[in-house]
Amino acid sequence: MNSFGQFLRVTLFGESHGPAIGVVIDGVPAGIPLAVGDFMEDLARRAPGAKGTTARREKDVPEILSGVYEGHTTGAPLTLIWRNEHARSEDYERLKDIPRPGHADYPAMGKYHGYADLRGGGPFSGRMTLALVAAGVVAKKLLQAVSLEISARLVEVGGENDPKRWDALLDECAAKGDSLGGVVECTASRMPVGLGEPFFDSLESLLSHAVFSIPGVRGIEFGDGFAAAGMKGSEHNDPLVAVPGLTKGEGTVAPAKNGAGGINGGLSNGAPLLFRVAFKPTASISRPQQTYNCRTHTQDILSVKGRHDVCFALRTPVIVEAATALVLCDLVLRDRAAMERPF
Amino acid sequence: MNSFGQFLRVTLFGESHGPAIGVVIDGVPAGIPLAVGDFMEDLARRAPGAKGTTARREKDVPEILSGVYEGHTTGAPLTLIWRNEHARSEDYERLKDIPRPGHADYPAMGKYHGYADLRGGGPFSGRMTLALVAAGVVAKKLLQAVSLEISARLVEVGGENDPKRWDALLDECAAKGDSLGGVVECTASRMPVGLGEPFFDSLESLLSHAVFSIPGVRGIEFGDGFAAAGMKGSEHNDPLVAVPGLTKGEGTVAPAKNGAGGINGGLSNGAPLLFRVAFKPTASISRPQQTYNCRTHTQDILSVKGRHDVCFALRTPVIVEAATALVLCDLVLRDRAAMERPF
Amino acid sequence: MNSFGQFLRVTLFGESHGPAIGVVIDGVPAGIPLAVGDFMEDLARRAPGAKGTTARREKDVPEILSGVYEGHTTGAPLTLIWRNEHARSEDYERLKDIPRPGHADYPAMGKYHGYADLRGGGPFSGRMTLALVAAGVVAKKLLQAVSLEISARLVEVGGENDPKRWDALLDECAAKGDSLGGVVECTASRMPVGLGEPFFDSLESLLSHAVFSIPGVRGIEFGDGFAAAGMKGSEHNDPLVAVPGLTKGEGTVAPAKNGAGGINGGLSNGAPLLFRVAFKPTASISRPQQTYNCRTHTQDILSVKGRHDVCFALRTPVIVEAATALVLCDLVLRDRAAMERPF
Amino acid sequence: MNSFGQFLRVTLFGESHGPAIGVVIDGVPAGIPLAVGDFMEDLARRAPGAKGTTARREKDVPEILSGVYEGHTTGAPLTLIWRNEHARSEDYERLKDIPRPGHADYPAMGKYHGYADLRGGGPFSGRMTLALVAAGVVAKKLLQAVSLEISARLVEVGGENDPKRWDALLDECAAKGDSLGGVVECTASRMPVGLGEPFFDSLESLLSHAVFSIPGVRGIEFGDGFAAAGMKGSEHNDPLVAVPGLTKGEGTVAPAKNGAGGINGGLSNGAPLLFRVAFKPTASISRPQQTYNCRTHTQDILSVKGRHDVCFALRTPVIVEAATALVLCDLVLRDRAAMERPF
Repeated sequence: MNSFGQFLRVTLFGESHGPAIGVVIDGVPAGIPLAVGDFMEDLARRAPGAKGTTARREKDVPEILSGVYEGHTTGAPLTLIWRNEHARSEDYERLKDIPRPGHADYPAMGKYHGYADLRGGGPFSGRMTLALVAAGVVAKKLLQAVSLEISARLVEVGGENDPKRWDALLDECAAKGDSLGGVVECTASRMPVGLGEPFFDSLESLLSHAVFSIPGVRGIEFGDGFAAAGMKGSEHNDPLVAVPGLTKGEGTVAPAKNGAGGINGGLSNGAPLLFRVAFKPTASISRPQQTYNCRTHTQDILSVKGRHDVCFALRTPVIVEAATALVLCDLVLRDRAAMERPF
Repeated sequence: MNSFGQFLRVTLFGESHGPAIGVVIDGVPAGIPLAVGDFMEDLARRAPGAKGTTARREKDVPEILSGVYEGHTTGAPLTLIWRNEHARSEDYERLKDIPRPGHADYPAMGKYHGYADLRGGGPFSGRMTLALVAAGVVAKKLLQAVSLEISARLVEVGGENDPKRWDALLDECAAKGDSLGGVVECTASRMPVGLGEPFFDSLESLLSHAVFSIPGVRGIEFGDGFAAAGMKGSEHNDPLVAVPGLTKGEGTVAPAKNGAGGINGGLSNGAPLLFRVAFKPTASISRPQQTYNCRTHTQDILSVKGRHDVCFALRTPVIVEAATALVLCDLVLRDRAAMERPF
Repeated sequence: MNSFGQFLRVTLFGESHGPAIGVVIDGVPAGIPLAVGDFMEDLARRAPGAKGTTARREKDVPEILSGVYEGHTTGAPLTLIWRNEHARSEDYERLKDIPRPGHADYPAMGKYHGYADLRGGGPFSGRMTLALVAAGVVAKKLLQAVSLEISARLVEVGGENDPKRWDALLDECAAKGDSLGGVVECTASRMPVGLGEPFFDSLESLLSHAVFSIPGVRGIEFGDGFAAAGMKGSEHNDPLVAVPGLTKGEGTVAPAKNGAGGINGGLSNGAPLLFRVAFKPTASISRPQQTYNCRTHTQDILSVKGRHDVCFALRTPVIVEAATALVLCDLVLRDRAAMERPF
Repeated sequence: MNSFGQFLRVTLFGESHGPAIGVVIDGVPAGIPLAVGDFMEDLARRAPGAKGTTARREKDVPEILSGVYEGHTTGAPLTLIWRNEHARSEDYERLKDIPRPGHADYPAMGKYHGYADLRGGGPFSGRMTLALVAAGVVAKKLLQAVSLEISARLVEVGGENDPKRWDALLDECAAKGDSLGGVVECTASRMPVGLGEPFFDSLESLLSHAVFSIPGVRGIEFGDGFAAAGMKGSEHNDPLVAVPGLTKGEGTVAPAKNGAGGINGGLSNGAPLLFRVAFKPTASISRPQQTYNCRTHTQDILSVKGRHDVCFALRTPVIVEAATALVLCDLVLRDRAAMERPF
């Protein structure tokens, strides 16, 4: 099913070159100020245009179909759509029988018995993340009420962690018709203590579930991550120390470092949430690749034309933030249900 | 919620030192041969006893409370319980006010307002994975019908990938009262094409959701994983080639290598599923650690006594297999619902 | 949440006088022939126009936003929308502070803190059933594959079960500015045996869940229904008899009468499904009614103007069919998942 | 699936003559005082013993397997089991091939391919309602925090609404080896305004879903119920009037009568919830009935021996209360999540 969340339930729909893509967000409380303009900053962060991203441009302005009246949410499901324009389907026409390496083309043919609308990637297209980012905007608005802030940024491009060298790498790679991957790091500050469940809805479970729905993710790690597997317990464990408050007598307990990424036993421990996401290089490259022609039943050589990001990871930090916001918002709502007084 | 799965729905319950732990598995078809003996092989793989694992021993034989009659499943929910014995709660008594670094103690106090039964780790205990492994046994049985096979093994201990050196590492670490982590690799062969959904139930989303519910996981990566972020598209993409069948005219298409870990666009592509899981070092160590005494409100030094694995990762391959089996079984059932003829 | 179904998941959205209403249907198998024209027959059955129904007319032609390509379903979520036109909001403007008796106005104010868009009934409007009927069309298409047929009809208007007298009743009632209720009977033939679950998803549970989401339902009863409470076991029990097949040796067992409405123990028993639904009289009447003015804080007298059905029950049989189809389709898919061989 | 609820999630398991029946209740907040004794009053109301009920007696004392520590809920899933004793399976042995009219025997054979454990009714047994009543006890405890009170009572036995005549009816019917049905009326007072959703989780939808999972229900109606279908709008609509508060300036608006059963547009309107449930006569009767022998393939005559209620409806009010409590508790938790400040 194309839905996520129990309390804030997001359903994506649409195909890249069909009439429209969109999202239904159910569970949004009534009375939240919301207008089309609220979405534009995050949608712009996701938009192509910078070096290393596709030249395809859509007017990313959503239409609000339901759930907003006189500038506030109504409490009914919030629905946003984006009409698909400027799609150059002819780019993709000849790919019909020739599945592109690294794409969903081949498994999608099997799953949907050849009926999927795979033009432009169809429901697998990165374009679907427009709707995800918009849902994230709503979730972030709700999280503002508990002062929770999420921030993601690119920390590695093509294996290089020095941003000064990224431009050169991108240029070099574009010239060769090839592509690059990257790593995004995400943090969330002012986390409440206790978000998550022991089984099966650990905080890592829910975050990885949401993050792996972003196309092109190959891995996720929390805190010390894979490096933790090579550490001693005495190195990896986070000592607990007192954090003095502003006023005498106030204060709390917190980990002295953050090897756990802000999570113990599947629950947030009050430290900042910290995780990294590995994005693969863009699958569509103009360099010739070996593939199989399912019509002629022969091996074939494919050079993917069209407008593609050299490194789509450049556009993903705001998408990772959105996925994170959906999870945290859902858990904060769950928390309000279960734990507040008078129970 | 402590449940997982839509079509095969697993609910875990229990606390490590309470009366019992157990599992309800709903959605098991009627007529599957099943007896207590079927669980023992996998439960033995999870049991302690080898070098580097705890000396605590439980009789891990489950009692079947419902769902089996005259040696076959009845179609009603299958319920298994394990009574908790041999628990030495005195080991944990003094930890009540002193949260152990690397454990759920501190966030659980916050989440459950001090009412959680945290003796022996309570609902966060590794003991809960007994129930997970048993659920995995049932899922594997169902997957046999489609010839799907899952296999996980330890590939790294304490940063070392040569198994010949693990014994020495474990001895050395045990002598110092410290602990080690490890990496588990899991594969599944004879995968059907098309398991998973574009959004939000990608195959990686569901697998990582299940895997991160295992205590102590710090990261997961599929195929080339984090290394993919440093590769070119031309290196990471898997070329598609013809795989000849046994008879003339038969055959299929498959990736020539497996950088994608058997998944494209969130769907299984027919190649073997391949992923790695990073486990942190055991949190409980006898080496003194800094923590905070919540009763005396002073910094304290803690040396965790009791029986603990030097490297609990040694016991996890069968648990990773179980988590994987739950996901794949759920998706195969979904697949049968959605895609078979006559629709 | 505004969703229903596990395997065929329907999400309604929209408000009567907002930009649009619509529906997302997730879980539709790929390859089903589907076009806008397929919806028109059932939408016409729901449309106003006959005696006793409102004169308000909308172009009920849906736009398909996603999930259909080249005349077939793609397997991705199917989304339909209807733009709202011809809405005369001024009719409702003065009702803002004066909740209409029998309507959701008053509880909706409380639930949504005054932010709900209640123009024309908002998300509570009977107009929402357009989307429900359309979802039913898709479900019926899927049920055709197992030859299952659903049929609902009006059996009572204003307490009168002789259709020859309904016209006169409607005229008389309209003249007085008053309204009438009615009873709809629904049957489904060629039911498979065993649809439903013992707890909590009995066939009656799921059907009543779906049916009570139709605005204005006051009761539902299966088979002998409320009369069963006054019967002896020897009267109400359905004897089981052999039903001979067309060929020698063939045949099956079936109830000799249908006091159980085709359901025993929450499971379909192979006999036709049979239930009745009581619809209240239309709440909006021009006859003066007592209500409370929440702005002036005084009792007030309200005469609801605008276009309203004298008896909206006339338009509901196709809606009851749709609700029934959603449930049966979901259960047939569940059945295919759980029970077919090779498990 | 054998589960109900989103926020307070109840899963029933067990078979009447298997080792045990039980229930897992997930989502119970930590810190609620709870002991075995808390269940006994409601379990006693459900127990047989009065005239017209079965002589079978079980020790209905549950064992708490998890979720309670030192007299309070821990926040982890709460699990209760009841061992099955005193079962006289020989009573049922010969019924194996002869489905009992009015029972789940026949459809269960089809659904579970002959593997169901149907001894004593198996998972369809009225005994399963023990677990439902216990879950209701927990839900009622939670509802006490919002002062919500639920009360159900028998209002009709064998078509007779004068309680003075019930004893004679029961005696007469028992003497003939026959059985009687009944009607239960349920009310809930101090209802918050706005519980429920427009689609598909109307308050009636959720209540009927839960109530129809009780074995033997044939119908449900809210407020004026089926009679509403024969009323005019001017008769059925509930006028809205001011309800003065205890202090000057306080007060609220409420319906002047309760034809809607406390619900408008699927939402609670603040008036008491009011509905009636029709229970069929007990299916098991000693009077000879016609049935089919699936082994000999001939018509057969069956006289059901064993211990059965003449009128099981006598034992159902506390079960209806439990089903109602589960729904209202779930909605109150949802309400707390969605609507409370600071959102």
